[in-house]
Amino acid sequence: MLRTLHRIAQANVQQKTRQLISCVAVRYSSAKVLTTETMHPLIKNVEYAVRGALPIRAEALSAELKAGKKLNFDKVVFCNIGNPQQLNQKPITFFRQVSSLCENPELLAPENRELLSKLYPADAIARAEVLLKNIGSIGAYSHSKGIPFIRENVAKFIESRDGYSANPEHIFLTQGASSGVQTMIQILTQNTSVGIMIPIPQYPLYSATISLVDAAPIPYYLNEEENWGLSTEDLKKSIEEGRKAGKDVRALVIINPGNPTGQCLSEQNIREIIDFCHKERLLLLADEVYQTNIYMPKERPFHSFKKVLLSMGEKYKDQELVSFHSTSKGMIGECGRRGGYFECVNIDEGVLEQLYKISSISLCPNVSGQIMVDLMTNPPVEGDASYAKYKSEIDGIFQSLQRRAIKLASCFNSLEGITCNAAEGAMYLFPRITIPQKAVEAAKEAKMAPDAFYSMAMLDATGVCVVPGSGFGQEAGTWHFRSTFLPEENLFDGFCSKIEDFHKDFLNKYRD
Amino acid sequence: MLRTLHRIAQANVQQKTRQLISCVAVRYSSAKVLTTETMHPLIKNVEYAVRGALPIRAEALSAELKAGKKLNFDKVVFCNIGNPQQLNQKPITFFRQVSSLCENPELLAPENRELLSKLYPADAIARAEVLLKNIGSIGAYSHSKGIPFIRENVAKFIESRDGYSANPEHIFLTQGASSGVQTMIQILTQNTSVGIMIPIPQYPLYSATISLVDAAPIPYYLNEEENWGLSTEDLKKSIEEGRKAGKDVRALVIINPGNPTGQCLSEQNIREIIDFCHKERLLLLADEVYQTNIYMPKERPFHSFKKVLLSMGEKYKDQELVSFHSTSKGMIGECGRRGGYFECVNIDEGVLEQLYKISSISLCPNVSGQIMVDLMTNPPVEGDASYAKYKSEIDGIFQSLQRRAIKLASCFNSLEGITCNAAEGAMYLFPRITIPQKAVEAAKEAKMAPDAFYSMAMLDATGVCVVPGSGFGQEAGTWHFRSTFLPEENLFDGFCSKIEDFHKDFLNKYRD
Repeated sequence: MLRTLHRIAQANVQQKTRQLISCVAVRYSSAKVLTTETMHPLIKNVEYAVRGALPIRAEALSAELKAGKKLNFDKVVFCNIGNPQQLNQKPITFFRQVSSLCENPELLAPENRELLSKLYPADAIARAEVLLKNIGSIGAYSHSKGIPFIRENVAKFIESRDGYSANPEHIFLTQGASSGVQTMIQILTQNTSVGIMIPIPQYPLYSATISLVDAAPIPYYLNEEENWGLSTEDLKKSIEEGRKAGKDVRALVIINPGNPTGQCLSEQNIREIIDFCHKERLLLLADEVYQTNIYMPKERPFHSFKKVLLSMGEKYKDQELVSFHSTSKGMIGECGRRGGYFECVNIDEGVLEQLYKISSISLCPNVSGQIMVDLMTNPPVEGDASYAKYKSEIDGIFQSLQRRAIKLASCFNSLEGITCNAAEGAMYLFPRITIPQKAVEAAKEAKMAPDAFYSMAMLDATGVCVVPGSGFGQEAGTWHFRSTFLPEENLFDGFCSKIEDFHKDFLNKYRD
Repeated sequence: MLRTLHRIAQANVQQKTRQLISCVAVRYSSAKVLTTETMHPLIKNVEYAVRGALPIRAEALSAELKAGKKLNFDKVVFCNIGNPQQLNQKPITFFRQVSSLCENPELLAPENRELLSKLYPADAIARAEVLLKNIGSIGAYSHSKGIPFIRENVAKFIESRDGYSANPEHIFLTQGASSGVQTMIQILTQNTSVGIMIPIPQYPLYSATISLVDAAPIPYYLNEEENWGLSTEDLKKSIEEGRKAGKDVRALVIINPGNPTGQCLSEQNIREIIDFCHKERLLLLADEVYQTNIYMPKERPFHSFKKVLLSMGEKYKDQELVSFHSTSKGMIGECGRRGGYFECVNIDEGVLEQLYKISSISLCPNVSGQIMVDLMTNPPVEGDASYAKYKSEIDGIFQSLQRRAIKLASCFNSLEGITCNAAEGAMYLFPRITIPQKAVEAAKEAKMAPDAFYSMAMLDATGVCVVPGSGFGQEAGTWHFRSTFLPEENLFDGFCSKIEDFHKDFLNKYRD
């Protein structure tokens, strides 16, 4: 308590210091060596909307509420990012039990066993012992590719998912999927003429990383009318344009299930994409982090690119594929963990060595993230003490996400001037909005894209933070935004009606 | 047990698959899009010795031992990297108690309190509650700069260390110190003419990162005869050469206490370095991760660059400084955690915004690493239930490191042709070895640097893995290696005598 009071006092001091330091900084900024004029130009130019202007304002509003300020809403709802536990999704009990035992091995000492057995199920204790036996201390740097034992488990997970063998030496554990994507895009970039095909709309990690390494994004458009499907004709058109522009197009990024678009590719479609990459000699980067967020499992099941590739036979045995997975999504939602992996399929052995070298410069992915990867790929199975609870938690989250996806889509579709495809997968909806001319002009005056203007108005009116479509890319002249459907189910109706009220007010204000 | 057997079986399958896949890879590598010919040239060229050829061989030997193979030794001793818990250093009990409670908040439920109080001290429970209250779930992405509450605590730690205020908004939590260093060197690099001064010998993170971003390392030499001291004359000489070569020299990297060299800079020396940077308009990158590994606290206490800078008054109020710290070193040694931070002092506000943007692309540093940063900077204090235990653990590790540093240095100095400066700080010794001409020729035949040849021979004879001086840089014609003094104290005499025997045999084999 005293400590807390002390903190508050300190915070005020720091507040003043902040103000002081920042005017000093402004007054003398010309005297600095490192300024926005002299810094790395590629860093200066990169854009990243998921955490851009809107979320920064959302954080500011959130701070104002904490400080007791009255606003149009009593809390900010962060729908700009797939961050389930931020919106109070419960972590999977078994996973946290195991990780907490790995954090505190003293609990496993014989003298604590009796007490421990009252707090932890036997299989959580057993799993922690197996992990610690194979890891040693979680406080030690691990192998730079990740703990070999865990990579073996990931390989077994992939084998049982796909029915084809996986090689632990071709699996790299990473700090979330993002860092793996960044590494692969960087190593693919030999010079500024290298082009990498990305979907539009896309998750801005791709455009940001491509511009950071000074490669060229080669956009291919997803077809909103066909529920964000893609045809090889679109791909052909796009690669031809890229090559006409003198680009050495080397790789194709595919996000399945889609982000922000939520579609799941059919096996047939995946086969066509692989065949296209094989014909055009493109390395495939498959972002499959939403592989368990599948809301129409009968009509639209998940097919891994690896499984489909290996089912296509000899002819494709050299097709290079890197598949990314993460502990942040699925029903797990352990985003803060920064756990993930990528699997390299048919990647040159020399390149694998280079990937190992480069990952060693950052020493290793954080070990608690690695442990979460182990748990994700190796969960309780029937017969384990924790299986029933694990299954009911996973099923509960899944069914709730499924319900919320449908509810939010129908909310959007009920609104004048909004159309929204259903989410077959992932955690997002990407509704298309018709923005009245008056609002377009107001946006122009505010020096904002119309969809950013709309989203900012939504934030100020409701506290709901979404990401404007312009942050993901969209067909010229169309406007969208991305919203997660992660708000708590018991608050979901209120969430939907807030958006409805805002939208109606917005239209009334700007109606042409 | 069954699961384990199953794993072994699987491992054999995977072993075969591996062999199969790798010959496929060789046979068709020419058909690949991504090869060592087409990959990013800067990644291909980068070198990183701490995890280079020697540790890779060490890992292989370690695997052979596990597989039951007989070697000259029964275990590999990894002295190539400062990884205390890998060599069985115990984690700090209080830290692990708090982190385990943050992992499993269910333990804090009222119904568990009575049991919990038998396993956890009251202050660990209280701390976990404060952290969770301020973090929310550790499974959620945090603020990209790190959890505000933890940055406030880090600021208070810096204030009480230095006696000058610190601004939480100028503190960035990171995945270990390495990722912060990589970000700062990248943002400093405007084009290939940018030069960054680094000490020789240096920690290869710096040379590796500089070559990855295609900047130029501007070496300045530490003076081995003066216990790795540096003079502003050396700095002047080095910057003049850099500028003569047309380089835009912008920043100076200083590692204090030194890695691999272990020296601690005097306050006077730090003042001279700051004055040099101010005159020459250089941003200071201060690697201060070993700030508590101080073995001669009376003669050679630690002085932070920030404290000395702010004590130098008005004239230096624009001197830019970034200081790096980590949870991996000190007495904590939580390397696997990937926790750390950097503090920006007098850094342009626009650049701070750019640093925030770039950190947001990786979403956030892992939260359990952030929690360890909080604990490191905010440990138990007198009066807390855990203080006595905390203090005895810290003191015990410190005194043991101090004894081992002295013992290993005197071991090295007792050997023919080896001279070794004492470690005033850090975790390493960097002995200088005279390598007989015959061995130099043998090394040449083996296409290895003489010190790499020596180190490889040591590994094969003793299982002790060190890093050749050529991995850090050294005066032309001199040869060194870096060894940690982290092997367990109860095994330390055996460790020293192994090295002695190897060295004598090596000299006898190659004596001129």
